[in-house]
Amino acid sequence: MGVMRIGHASIKVMDVAAAVKHYENVIGMKVTMQDKAGNVYLKCWDEWDKYSLILTPSDRAGLNHVAYKVENDSDLDVLRKRIEEYGIKTEMLPEGDLPSTGRMLKFHLPSGHEMRLYATKECVGTDVGSLNPDPWPDDIKGAGAHSLDHTLLICELNPEKGVNRVAENTRFVMDCLDFHLSEQVMVGPGRDIQAATWLFRTSTPHDIAFVGGASNGLHHIAFFLDDWADVLKAADVMAKNKVQIDVSPTRHGITRGTTIYFFDPSGNRNETFAGLGYLAQPDRPVITWTEDQLGRGIFYHAGELVPSFVEVYT
Amino acid sequence: MGVMRIGHASIKVMDVAAAVKHYENVIGMKVTMQDKAGNVYLKCWDEWDKYSLILTPSDRAGLNHVAYKVENDSDLDVLRKRIEEYGIKTEMLPEGDLPSTGRMLKFHLPSGHEMRLYATKECVGTDVGSLNPDPWPDDIKGAGAHSLDHTLLICELNPEKGVNRVAENTRFVMDCLDFHLSEQVMVGPGRDIQAATWLFRTSTPHDIAFVGGASNGLHHIAFFLDDWADVLKAADVMAKNKVQIDVSPTRHGITRGTTIYFFDPSGNRNETFAGLGYLAQPDRPVITWTEDQLGRGIFYHAGELVPSFVEVYT
Amino acid sequence: MGVMRIGHASIKVMDVAAAVKHYENVIGMKVTMQDKAGNVYLKCWDEWDKYSLILTPSDRAGLNHVAYKVENDSDLDVLRKRIEEYGIKTEMLPEGDLPSTGRMLKFHLPSGHEMRLYATKECVGTDVGSLNPDPWPDDIKGAGAHSLDHTLLICELNPEKGVNRVAENTRFVMDCLDFHLSEQVMVGPGRDIQAATWLFRTSTPHDIAFVGGASNGLHHIAFFLDDWADVLKAADVMAKNKVQIDVSPTRHGITRGTTIYFFDPSGNRNETFAGLGYLAQPDRPVITWTEDQLGRGIFYHAGELVPSFVEVYT
Amino acid sequence: MGVMRIGHASIKVMDVAAAVKHYENVIGMKVTMQDKAGNVYLKCWDEWDKYSLILTPSDRAGLNHVAYKVENDSDLDVLRKRIEEYGIKTEMLPEGDLPSTGRMLKFHLPSGHEMRLYATKECVGTDVGSLNPDPWPDDIKGAGAHSLDHTLLICELNPEKGVNRVAENTRFVMDCLDFHLSEQVMVGPGRDIQAATWLFRTSTPHDIAFVGGASNGLHHIAFFLDDWADVLKAADVMAKNKVQIDVSPTRHGITRGTTIYFFDPSGNRNETFAGLGYLAQPDRPVITWTEDQLGRGIFYHAGELVPSFVEVYT
Repeated sequence: MGVMRIGHASIKVMDVAAAVKHYENVIGMKVTMQDKAGNVYLKCWDEWDKYSLILTPSDRAGLNHVAYKVENDSDLDVLRKRIEEYGIKTEMLPEGDLPSTGRMLKFHLPSGHEMRLYATKECVGTDVGSLNPDPWPDDIKGAGAHSLDHTLLICELNPEKGVNRVAENTRFVMDCLDFHLSEQVMVGPGRDIQAATWLFRTSTPHDIAFVGGASNGLHHIAFFLDDWADVLKAADVMAKNKVQIDVSPTRHGITRGTTIYFFDPSGNRNETFAGLGYLAQPDRPVITWTEDQLGRGIFYHAGELVPSFVEVYT
Repeated sequence: MGVMRIGHASIKVMDVAAAVKHYENVIGMKVTMQDKAGNVYLKCWDEWDKYSLILTPSDRAGLNHVAYKVENDSDLDVLRKRIEEYGIKTEMLPEGDLPSTGRMLKFHLPSGHEMRLYATKECVGTDVGSLNPDPWPDDIKGAGAHSLDHTLLICELNPEKGVNRVAENTRFVMDCLDFHLSEQVMVGPGRDIQAATWLFRTSTPHDIAFVGGASNGLHHIAFFLDDWADVLKAADVMAKNKVQIDVSPTRHGITRGTTIYFFDPSGNRNETFAGLGYLAQPDRPVITWTEDQLGRGIFYHAGELVPSFVEVYT
Repeated sequence: MGVMRIGHASIKVMDVAAAVKHYENVIGMKVTMQDKAGNVYLKCWDEWDKYSLILTPSDRAGLNHVAYKVENDSDLDVLRKRIEEYGIKTEMLPEGDLPSTGRMLKFHLPSGHEMRLYATKECVGTDVGSLNPDPWPDDIKGAGAHSLDHTLLICELNPEKGVNRVAENTRFVMDCLDFHLSEQVMVGPGRDIQAATWLFRTSTPHDIAFVGGASNGLHHIAFFLDDWADVLKAADVMAKNKVQIDVSPTRHGITRGTTIYFFDPSGNRNETFAGLGYLAQPDRPVITWTEDQLGRGIFYHAGELVPSFVEVYT
Repeated sequence: MGVMRIGHASIKVMDVAAAVKHYENVIGMKVTMQDKAGNVYLKCWDEWDKYSLILTPSDRAGLNHVAYKVENDSDLDVLRKRIEEYGIKTEMLPEGDLPSTGRMLKFHLPSGHEMRLYATKECVGTDVGSLNPDPWPDDIKGAGAHSLDHTLLICELNPEKGVNRVAENTRFVMDCLDFHLSEQVMVGPGRDIQAATWLFRTSTPHDIAFVGGASNGLHHIAFFLDDWADVLKAADVMAKNKVQIDVSPTRHGITRGTTIYFFDPSGNRNETFAGLGYLAQPDRPVITWTEDQLGRGIFYHAGELVPSFVEVYT
C-alpha cells in the first residue's frame, strides 16, 4: 500500500516549556516522552502510536522534518528505489534514530523540505483503548484534537524565473509516493501555473499541501477536530488561553473544512481543521481554483485573503 | 490498490414511485436514469459517478446486490483470480450489463449475498462541480446526504450448528479484497465467536459490515451526513415526511458515528450516518466489543438494543 | 413585575451521596451548602443565586416543593392577596426558613403540589463572574448545564369524574401569577379538555408545565443546555456515567426544544432541555396540539409516546 | 407590563429591489406588503405580526425609526406620561399611520434616534401555524432567520465635551421604559464613563444596545438564529450570495452570542445573532467590561476590534 498517513512533525520552538503548555492546554495533546537532548514528544488522545509531534529546542521557529507512515517495512525499500530513480538522494536512518521508531527513509522534497518515511513506531493505544471504548476520554483537555491531520508547506514559486517548487513537489509525491491530487490552484494568464496543491493518501481531502510563496518554509501543521461545534469550543479555548489567533472560525472553500488558524508561542502556525470535508478518492474529479476565486477558496466566507496569512510563515 | 469504496446498492422496492419520492425528498438523492425494465437509478449530490442506488420493482423488499468500485480495470482480473482460488465462483458481466457501467465481476459472499466489483461508471460530476465549487449546492433537498456510505448485511450465525457466516465473510473480504477490520463483536463463553464485524477500504470506520442473525439478509444501507447538526435536520425532515423511524438520533459506540435508522416505504432499512467517527487505518488497533457491552456498542446512549433493530431486516 | 422565573426545586432522594454525585458529575452542578438535617444545596455554573436544587433525604423519590422567584419583596404581598382571594390558603414562611433565602409565600396549587414564592436569595454570582467574563468556566463538569429551567408536574386528569387539575392549575397560574400560555394539548371528542399546558414568565417557551395523569406527581425537573451539540455531549456523559436514559436525544414538537430524559439514582426524572425553542411572548398565538398529533408533539421524530414516559413519575 | 420586544425597524435603502432580494434570499424574510410610496414590508418565518422590517426608498442608507411593541394599548398612555415627565416630547400617531398597525407613540431618544411604541399590529401567524406545528417551515430560505432580534445604535460620546448620549439613552430607557441593563462598557481613567450598554425587556441579553461613537447613527439590525450550526449555514449562504461580510463567524464576549456581521446592498449593517446567550433577568448581576478587555468583549476569539466595525455605520 505504501504511505498511509502523516506520522509526525518535528518542529523547532524557542521556549520548550511554553510550547508544551500550548500543545497540552490548547490542542489537548499529552507528553509521552522526553529525551536527553531536551526534545519533547507528544500525541493526541485518538492516536495510537507513541507520538505525532516532536518539539525541539531552537533559537527560531520552523519545521525540522515531516514524517509519513508506510504500511509495511518493505515499502521503505520499494519507495527508496523509486525515489532514487526519480533522482532524489535518500538516506536510511537506523531504527532508534528517533526513539520508539523503526528505520526511517530520509530525503528532501524538490522544495528542500525534509521528509521521512517509516513503517514502525511503538503503539501505545488511543486514550479510549480498544476494548468496549467510550467515544472520547474523560480527561480531554483544551480543544481535544483527535490527531495530527496534515501539514502545509510553502514552496518557492517564481514563475518569472521559471521556479515552481509546488509543481515539482506535487509531481514527486504523486509519481513516487502515490499521493492523489484533490485540489489545485491554477494561476497565470494561461491558468497553467500550479500555484498550490492539496494531496491525499487517506480518504480525507489532504494529508499534505503545497502552496507557492517567496521562499520555502512551514505554513502550518493541522490537527483534526470532529465538527463545527468543536471549532467553537476550540476558539473559546484559544481565547481563554490568550492564544494569538490568525484567522477565527470560518470555512475553507478548498477542502470544505471548517478551520481556525493560530500560532504557538514560538510563532509556528497551527490549524484546527474540522470535518471530513468530503470523501477523497482517486477517481474523484480534481477540483481547480482560479486566481480570481482564490480568496473564496481559502476563506470561503470573507472571500478575501488575510495578508498575514500568506506572508507569515516559519 | 483494488477496492476503493462502495459503488452502489441495488435494492428491491414494492412501489417504485413511493420509493423514488422517499430517496429524493428524505435522503435528498436525484434520479439520474431510468431503464425500460422500470429500474430507477439515483445519486447523491456529492457523488460523481452516475448512480449509487438502483431501485428495482419487486413484490418484496431486500437487496439484489451491493457493488464496490475498484481503482483500475485490471484489478478486476487480479481479484477474480484471488476469489476463484479462494474457492468462490465468479462471473464477469460484460460492460453495459448495468447501464453506464463497465464490466462487473459478480460473485457471492460465503453468506450468499451477491457482491459485484467494477472499475468504471460514467462520471457526471458532483452537483457543485469541480471549478471553484461551493461547499454545497443551492438546490439541496431533504437530509441532503452526501453519498452512499456503507451497507450492513445480516449473516447467518448459529454457533450450535457451527455456522458463522460473519466470520466467513470477514475472512473472505480481508483475504481476497484487502479489507481491514476496524471493530468486531466477540461472543460466547470463550469470547471466540466473531458475531459482528466492521471493515474498511477508505479511511472511514466501515465500508461494509456483517452482523450475525437468524438468516442472511439486508440490515440497512447507509448515507453519509456531515455532522450531528445534520442529524437533527435529517430527523426533522423524516418527521415532516412521516417516515417510519426505527431509532431516533443517537451515537454508536461502534464507529462513534451519530445515526438515525428508518425505513423506506417498502421496509428497507436506511441509516443516515454522520461524521468521520475516526480515521480508520490498517495499523489502528482493532476494537473489540464484548457481549455484555454490546448494547452500548450499538446504541451508546440508551445502552440497550431495540428488539426491532436486531429482528427486522429484509 | 411579579414572578421572574423558577428559583429552585426541592426533591427527595433515597441516597444523598449518590444523588450529589449524579447532579455534580452528570448535570454539572456544584454543592454550595449543606445543613444539619442532611439537606444538600446545589447550583449550576450560570446561576447567580446560591442554590437551585435542594436534595432532601427520604425513603422515596419525589418533589417537596418548587419555588419561583419574584422581582420585588412587595410582590409577595400583592400575590398573597390575589391567591387568597382566589380561594387558596397561603402561609408566609419567615426569612431563614430556607437558608440564605428571604421570606417565602407557601401555598398549594389546585393539584396539591406545593409551590413557594420568594424575592431574595443570597447572590453568589455565576462561575464566570461579572467583570470581563469568559463565556464558560474552565472547570465545567459533566453536561455543564447552565441553570434549572423548568419543572413539569403531573396533575390528576379524569374527565369522566370531572376532574381536571391541569386546567385548574393553568387557570390559577395565569390568573394569579400572570403566567402566559404558550402551548396546550386539547383532547376529547370536542377537543375541549385541556390535557396539558406549557406556561411562561420569561421569554422561553415554558417555566412550568402541567400534564394530565392518573395522580399528582413530579414528571421531571429540567436543566438548560445551549444547543444540540451540548445534547450530544450530555448524552455521552450520561452513557459514561451509566445513567439510566429514558428517552435519548430527540426534539420536542411542543416547545421545539431538543432533549434527553433520564433518571437520577433515586428515580427522579431529569431532562436536559436545549435551545431557546422560540421567543415566548404574551401576544404570540397559543399553540394547540390535538390528540392524534400528540406523539409528534412530545417526541417529534419518533412520533410516538414511549409508555414509560407517561406512566412513570414520582 | 409595558414594552415586550422589538417590533420593527424602518430603514432606508438606495435600491429597493436589491434590498428585497437580500432580505429574502440571505436573511430568509418574506415580503408581506408594499405601499404606494414604494415601501416594502417583510417578516421572518417565526414572527406572527405582519412585518418587522420596512424598507424605504432613499438616496442614502440608515435608520428611519425603530419600534417596540408594548403589551397593552393602555401602556401607551402610561408610558407617554412618563416620557413627557422625563422631559421628552412625544407625538401619538393615529392608527393606520403605518399600515396594519395601531396608534404609535413617537419620540426621540436623547441621542436623537427616533423610537416608536405601539400595541397592535395585524397578526398573520408564524409560517408553521399554531395547530400541531412543525418546528420549521418547508420553504425556508437563506439563513432562515427566526425574527428581528435587536438593534444597536451608535450614540455620540465625547467625554471631553461632556457629551455621553450612551449614558443618557441608557438612563432614559431604564427609567421610562423599564429596560434592564445586562452589560456595560466602562472606560476612562476612573472607569466611570459608560461607553456602551446592552439592555433587555425579554429574557435575552439585549433588545437594544447603545455604543458610543463620533456621531449618532445605526450600527446594525440583528436577526435571530438558533445556534452555531445555523451560523455556519448563514455564512455559507452569504458567501453564495456574494454578500459583503464585515466579521465572519465568531463569538461575542458580551452577550456570549455567536455572530456574523455583514452589509445589505445599501450598506446597512446586519447581524445574525445566534443562541440564547444567557437568561437575562432583572436580578442577574450586571456585567461590566473594561477598556483593556473590550476587544475580547466584542470579538471574543480574535480579541481585537476590527477598525471598520467601529468606524463604519449609517
